[in-house]
Amino acid sequence: MKYNDLSQALAKLDQIEATAAAYGHAMGLLATDAATAAPTDSYEGRGRTMEVLSGVVYNLVADPENKDLLFYLEEHRAELDRFRLRQVELLRKQVDQLSRIPQEEYVAYSVLLNEADGVWCKAKNNNDFASFAPFLEKIVNYNRKFAGYYNPSLSPYDALLNEYEEGLNMQTLDAFFSQLRTALVPLIHAIGEKQQIDDSFLKRNYPIEQQEKFSDYLMQVMEIDPTRCTLAETEHPFTNGFNSHDVRITTHYYENDVANSMYSVIHEGGHALYELGGDEANDYTSIQGGASMSIHESQSRFYENIVGRSLEFVELIFPKMQELFPKQLKDVTAEQVYRAVNKAQPSLIRTEADELTYCLHIMVRYELEKQLIDGTLQVKDLPAAWNKMYQEYLGVEVPNDSQGCLQDSHWSGGMIGYFPSYALGSAYGAQMKVFMEQDIGPIAQLISKGELNKITAWLKEHIHRYGQLYKPGELFEMSCGKFDAKYYTDYLTEKYSKLYNL
Amino acid sequence: MKYNDLSQALAKLDQIEATAAAYGHAMGLLATDAATAAPTDSYEGRGRTMEVLSGVVYNLVADPENKDLLFYLEEHRAELDRFRLRQVELLRKQVDQLSRIPQEEYVAYSVLLNEADGVWCKAKNNNDFASFAPFLEKIVNYNRKFAGYYNPSLSPYDALLNEYEEGLNMQTLDAFFSQLRTALVPLIHAIGEKQQIDDSFLKRNYPIEQQEKFSDYLMQVMEIDPTRCTLAETEHPFTNGFNSHDVRITTHYYENDVANSMYSVIHEGGHALYELGGDEANDYTSIQGGASMSIHESQSRFYENIVGRSLEFVELIFPKMQELFPKQLKDVTAEQVYRAVNKAQPSLIRTEADELTYCLHIMVRYELEKQLIDGTLQVKDLPAAWNKMYQEYLGVEVPNDSQGCLQDSHWSGGMIGYFPSYALGSAYGAQMKVFMEQDIGPIAQLISKGELNKITAWLKEHIHRYGQLYKPGELFEMSCGKFDAKYYTDYLTEKYSKLYNL
Repeated sequence: MKYNDLSQALAKLDQIEATAAAYGHAMGLLATDAATAAPTDSYEGRGRTMEVLSGVVYNLVADPENKDLLFYLEEHRAELDRFRLRQVELLRKQVDQLSRIPQEEYVAYSVLLNEADGVWCKAKNNNDFASFAPFLEKIVNYNRKFAGYYNPSLSPYDALLNEYEEGLNMQTLDAFFSQLRTALVPLIHAIGEKQQIDDSFLKRNYPIEQQEKFSDYLMQVMEIDPTRCTLAETEHPFTNGFNSHDVRITTHYYENDVANSMYSVIHEGGHALYELGGDEANDYTSIQGGASMSIHESQSRFYENIVGRSLEFVELIFPKMQELFPKQLKDVTAEQVYRAVNKAQPSLIRTEADELTYCLHIMVRYELEKQLIDGTLQVKDLPAAWNKMYQEYLGVEVPNDSQGCLQDSHWSGGMIGYFPSYALGSAYGAQMKVFMEQDIGPIAQLISKGELNKITAWLKEHIHRYGQLYKPGELFEMSCGKFDAKYYTDYLTEKYSKLYNL
Repeated sequence: MKYNDLSQALAKLDQIEATAAAYGHAMGLLATDAATAAPTDSYEGRGRTMEVLSGVVYNLVADPENKDLLFYLEEHRAELDRFRLRQVELLRKQVDQLSRIPQEEYVAYSVLLNEADGVWCKAKNNNDFASFAPFLEKIVNYNRKFAGYYNPSLSPYDALLNEYEEGLNMQTLDAFFSQLRTALVPLIHAIGEKQQIDDSFLKRNYPIEQQEKFSDYLMQVMEIDPTRCTLAETEHPFTNGFNSHDVRITTHYYENDVANSMYSVIHEGGHALYELGGDEANDYTSIQGGASMSIHESQSRFYENIVGRSLEFVELIFPKMQELFPKQLKDVTAEQVYRAVNKAQPSLIRTEADELTYCLHIMVRYELEKQLIDGTLQVKDLPAAWNKMYQEYLGVEVPNDSQGCLQDSHWSGGMIGYFPSYALGSAYGAQMKVFMEQDIGPIAQLISKGELNKITAWLKEHIHRYGQLYKPGELFEMSCGKFDAKYYTDYLTEKYSKLYNL
């Protein structure tokens, strides 16, 4: 259709965005519910509902009228402010991508992913890579093909990386990971020769009822507004934010591992603060939410590691820990807890890895994804390649595929190019710390005084409030200058040298 | 449009029904989530999402093409089976009603109800009827007007009754309630002169953690499949069934009142068994769900009262109760528990009323609704009328409107004509018991043996599996003959005469 004036076109844009937000909310809630409260046998009905709703969203983006709308708005670019320009840019990206993906391929891929998830889950439980391999092969092929639709001007893996982090490419990541490798591998070897930290007291019996109270306390310390964010229990912890007044986080309690849920709550709490800190004007528009997965992970891992695994934080919360777990911690000091939660030791499972060795797990996945997408690695050869790299990078023997290349759900979910976000986010966080401290002083002192709100206020000012208004790289550079992995390697080297007396 | 053949028209019908089911699921989940897990401050976003989704549902029904579709299907009525005929009948009802309600009135009424709920809630908390009165007045006026749209051939209150129970009218209810009054009022007076039952031990301290285990046990005794039905906590207990594989029930725990949650779980469990027992073929169609509110209440109150408040049931579960609450019940017998949970005493609050006096609470509401709708009672005079009737019917003094005419949420939710379902459902249940026992023998014996599955199987066979395939009256008569309140008054008279040695 033809637009008579700008306000008419903007009204149409607003209507598209409000509709997309409503469907996003409904579908996000269906997914959250599936993990938190739904009966296990309820998947069929949810699948049908998701199919109907996602079909509507597909048509909302695929509507041929959107091309006229975008054309009109792009012609009037000079009259639009940043917010509007970014909305137009985001819709343009969606419309162009969708117009390049043939609908039958889009549907077939959705169906494939739906099936693959169940197959992967069984394969993991039965240590049966062979049953999952044909699905993974198809997923890899689709991703290679879709990469061409996403951005035909980029190499396929770069196009996939861009889906999770606009502007990211292999060149940047290769340099980043090589810098990490150079700094961290000798550090990890040196630690391997030192006496290991005792963390056995964290594995005593910590009743779940008490851990629940501990979670509430941690959310309080982080000043997470309970009228806008609630906590539930799930198999795997996650955060889902619908708008700045409706955020959900989850955790998983283990009776014999108090640190597990503790750091899940702090990690997801970091994600939650990001979602809660968005400008209200972003709500119900495409600007709502995080700038990218890496920026999101920078917030969660900042809280989990830089704040949560600092001596000052452990000292701050230790009195409450002792109150809640008097028997379990009666012979333990805050410093012992601090050291225990920072024990570094190469291991098999990414999600259980410590702060220092975590990035090596990511590197393995990054290298393998590149090879899968460029075709130098066949899916059937993945287990052997995985095991070889775990030996090489982490020095650990992989006993079976369940604890090896079947451990993560990302690939069965079609998410190839996602893993680097985790490492990049951690590195972003370390650099943010330096620039934050130039403004508000040493955060260790703030943490000691329980003034986490000053840290959150800085993050809100520089990151949270913008939502998706800027591209992730742009947003980062606005407050932290050019990205440099050295901030991260320096942070880790200093922290772990002290911890292990290197 | 014109349909070329029946299969084309039926495909269109299927598509409408599948779409409606998906939206019903999504909106039902939003409502369930609001009561169970959502942060308190999340209402705005949910309101926006509900508005978008309910707008789509409105358009789905209001689509002018539906008239052609219905016309075609009704012309080919002879070729349709019962399932199809009922689908057509249900869609016809929706389409006709919607076509008679001007869209601006429909929207204005939705907006009014949205606002009224918050106003009522505050008014109840502050004992301030005056602030709610103007809203209630508008709601009454809308209901009177909408009654004409629903069914212009009926008197307004009959038309409203029909919304909750197809075929129900004042003539039936007047006779029903008069029969109840004749039988129950003398019974209640006689009990008032006897020594009252001691139920003080039910008000001891029952830790919620233990009550949670008790809920799981009760669901197990009722053989509610945990892979298809889950339990959550809410302010007010309810059941929401999305399909036969996805049902949610909720309860509310009170530390000093073990019977409260116990009978909530059994009551909602009865609703759940109904939803779980529907034929799978009903799922994702308009046939899914209960035949009416009364039939639904017949199932929940059958389980709560006829099964759950029987001596045999209390004896069956008493060992587990003692295991979970050893201190609280150490000086108590199963028979004492049985007597305590059946203590009959006129009181102020409907939801806390016992099995015997419950119907009197309903009668008050029924009489007042009739007068409000026919205009013989003004909203401003409601509190005085309410208090007078509570004195007359129940012999209790109403100390304030919060515990009087503001106690229920139904009217602020626009539900006028709903209350009689509760009483009717109870009476249906008593008649079902008699006809059930003709087939499977005395249920007391089955309960003693823990064979509740045989009771559920009978209900599934005669009620559950049909969903909305039959009108409620029809469905009831198929297995229980003509409705007669005498079954109910006989049941209550026998039970309470024994309990109180009359």
